[in-house]
Amino acid sequence: MIRLSATDAGFEAAFARIVADRRESDSDVSGAVSAILADVRARGDAALADYTARFDGHTLDSEADWRISAQACKAAFDALDPTLRAALETAATRIAAYHAAQKPEDRDYTDAQGVRLGAVWKPVDAAGLYVPGGRAAYPSSLLMNAIPAKVAGVQRLVVVTPTPKGALNDLVLAAAHLAGVDEIWRVGGAHAVGALAYGTDRIAPVDVITGPGNAYVAEAKRQLYGVVGIDMVAGPSEILVLADGKNNPDWIAADLLSQAEHDPVAQSILITDDAAFADAVEAAVERALQSLPTQATARQSWDDFGVIVVVDDLERDAAALANRLAAEHVEIATDDPQSLFAQIRHAGSAFLGRHTPEAIGDYVAGPNHVLPTGRRARFASGLSVLDFMKRTSFLQLDETALAAIGPAAVALADAEGLPAHGLSVSVRLGHKG
Amino acid sequence: MIRLSATDAGFEAAFARIVADRRESDSDVSGAVSAILADVRARGDAALADYTARFDGHTLDSEADWRISAQACKAAFDALDPTLRAALETAATRIAAYHAAQKPEDRDYTDAQGVRLGAVWKPVDAAGLYVPGGRAAYPSSLLMNAIPAKVAGVQRLVVVTPTPKGALNDLVLAAAHLAGVDEIWRVGGAHAVGALAYGTDRIAPVDVITGPGNAYVAEAKRQLYGVVGIDMVAGPSEILVLADGKNNPDWIAADLLSQAEHDPVAQSILITDDAAFADAVEAAVERALQSLPTQATARQSWDDFGVIVVVDDLERDAAALANRLAAEHVEIATDDPQSLFAQIRHAGSAFLGRHTPEAIGDYVAGPNHVLPTGRRARFASGLSVLDFMKRTSFLQLDETALAAIGPAAVALADAEGLPAHGLSVSVRLGHKG
Repeated sequence: MIRLSATDAGFEAAFARIVADRRESDSDVSGAVSAILADVRARGDAALADYTARFDGHTLDSEADWRISAQACKAAFDALDPTLRAALETAATRIAAYHAAQKPEDRDYTDAQGVRLGAVWKPVDAAGLYVPGGRAAYPSSLLMNAIPAKVAGVQRLVVVTPTPKGALNDLVLAAAHLAGVDEIWRVGGAHAVGALAYGTDRIAPVDVITGPGNAYVAEAKRQLYGVVGIDMVAGPSEILVLADGKNNPDWIAADLLSQAEHDPVAQSILITDDAAFADAVEAAVERALQSLPTQATARQSWDDFGVIVVVDDLERDAAALANRLAAEHVEIATDDPQSLFAQIRHAGSAFLGRHTPEAIGDYVAGPNHVLPTGRRARFASGLSVLDFMKRTSFLQLDETALAAIGPAAVALADAEGLPAHGLSVSVRLGHKG
Repeated sequence: MIRLSATDAGFEAAFARIVADRRESDSDVSGAVSAILADVRARGDAALADYTARFDGHTLDSEADWRISAQACKAAFDALDPTLRAALETAATRIAAYHAAQKPEDRDYTDAQGVRLGAVWKPVDAAGLYVPGGRAAYPSSLLMNAIPAKVAGVQRLVVVTPTPKGALNDLVLAAAHLAGVDEIWRVGGAHAVGALAYGTDRIAPVDVITGPGNAYVAEAKRQLYGVVGIDMVAGPSEILVLADGKNNPDWIAADLLSQAEHDPVAQSILITDDAAFADAVEAAVERALQSLPTQATARQSWDDFGVIVVVDDLERDAAALANRLAAEHVEIATDDPQSLFAQIRHAGSAFLGRHTPEAIGDYVAGPNHVLPTGRRARFASGLSVLDFMKRTSFLQLDETALAAIGPAAVALADAEGLPAHGLSVSVRLGHKG
């Protein structure tokens, strides 16, 4: 953990290093991934079976080896502990409500020149969701990816997920049932992403691929960007907590550790204007780590990437630093969080006040937990209904409207040296068709 | 040109080949581009000067070699022929009006559980626009990229454009003045894109890079996706015209040629239900080509990639084919275009009725002319204000709201094996803070 004081001589250089440190995986897997994608494109299901045997120790042979049935998902859902089932249902209901309000409106109007203009939004035909196997197979992630697609109106929702040595994850199956997933294929890795993009004999191609994965999955999505739509490439999770000295140190320590337990390269940063409070949080983190079942991961993250910054005045100093960090999650634990929030230009998601721990947004509050990491909140947004929709703009002119604006188009086409453009307008001018 | 009839035995196979043919450049420049980007990242302005001398024959030495001043842009604008200046102003005004209505609304509401939820939209801090040199240096493209950024509220708008052997394009300078561009740097190619993303001593980094370019520029944007935001990677332009037999063949021929003259690999497709009209359009294309100054390019495109499909019934048959093509531009030249348009799920932009040539949308109508090509309208939209903005979701809970939904979050965190997530909620339950 690094502790900085904004009044120290070396502060600017030290903080600039933290901003510049993207903590991305530097493993270059691009060559390996492009070979896998070319193989899947050429050999389809046979390539999928080979890679799945090799990487997952799972043989794709019978229909049940390839796919998880809707019945199996329903059975997993019905077998859930009632408390957990109710929690999943609460999450799904609230996520659906928040995302339903994101649906964009069509536009259709006629302006003073008589030109009809507008845009209509439509869902993509099919979406593919990558669901990791092993430790990172989170049912909450499945809901956060699947529900916006459903709300958008996507007709075909396809999950790919590796089942190493054939092992299924009942929680993920239950979430797939609840979210209304249409197909689940037992394949993972770059080859599964390639199958979704190119299609195989068994798996029809999709239009958009979202969902988290390892370095191979992320690189496959990056290489297929343009063949399909993808969500933002994601790096390790991060939280920035802006807290005054009036907070309970144990609460803030738990918030910092809730990111740290995700990943040894996750990052938790506290900015406060109370040095004694900073001491107290530091001690509280150590106390909480003692009994935390995920302490190995959380301690490594906190030791290697944790940061505490003490500034003079939180209201005056914190937002400028926060905007440079452009963090995935920003908590503002003060009496008047709105005043600091209004100064934040770049953040994936904000958590306002002392009773809004970031984790409430991970699960049940409603907004999406798939958010831009690694300073990408400078230009990117969290996953939304818009990622599963696209817009068609439209125009309609009659003879009068074309007479009003057509000559300007002809002048510009001539100036750009595109005479057929000009001709397509001028040939119609003064004619009723 | 290929002519197909939907009733022919081989139609499905022939049409499927047209759908599968993406007409993308297959030149693999990824290795060359990644070397250039690494060099720009390491050596900054020195690398820019080296590549600009090598590729553009332009020496970057004095300030005027590096930058085009605001005064030079204003002078170019003032020197325009008045008709052309008025045309540019008409275009800018109409583009700004259409895009202003795209600005998304913030959301802020409190639900029945007392949870405050919402999202705020903010512009990116800085945007970079790539403007090609030579034949493809279109002032209309500059307006179409710059104005949405300005409408979004972007504070710093940076253009990079190559000036081969030092030659400036007065029309582009005039458009830059009109659009309110803040900086113009005389660099182009993959190295210019790298400079925008990473920043150099002279050029501060930007957050989003848009604009068309050659294969190197497109590959540089693809590789930098995630470091910055980018617009969709674009392929050759394309038009699909759905026309009944009551159209003037010369009008439709001009529309087909207006795409063909862009690029030898552009594509123009006509679908009609009148074989005699198809004959007439074919003849009209030949006639128009005779006198077209861009006939060399247009003929190559039409000969190699032009398609005429005759179907039985336009209203019944055309939309299904159009949705498979997911074309950049779709013209619907019928008496009741709305009825066919309602069946179109995938199109970048639509042009309705007999008096709406696609070229009117390229210049002055208002909607953006930067549109998804190569079947990407299945999942992508044209350039918009949203490409220069991003959304921060937010939550605010008090003790009561956390008591209402917190236990569900704790249950899910436990099930996912993330105890610090659960702790950050449970430690607050039943406490006033």
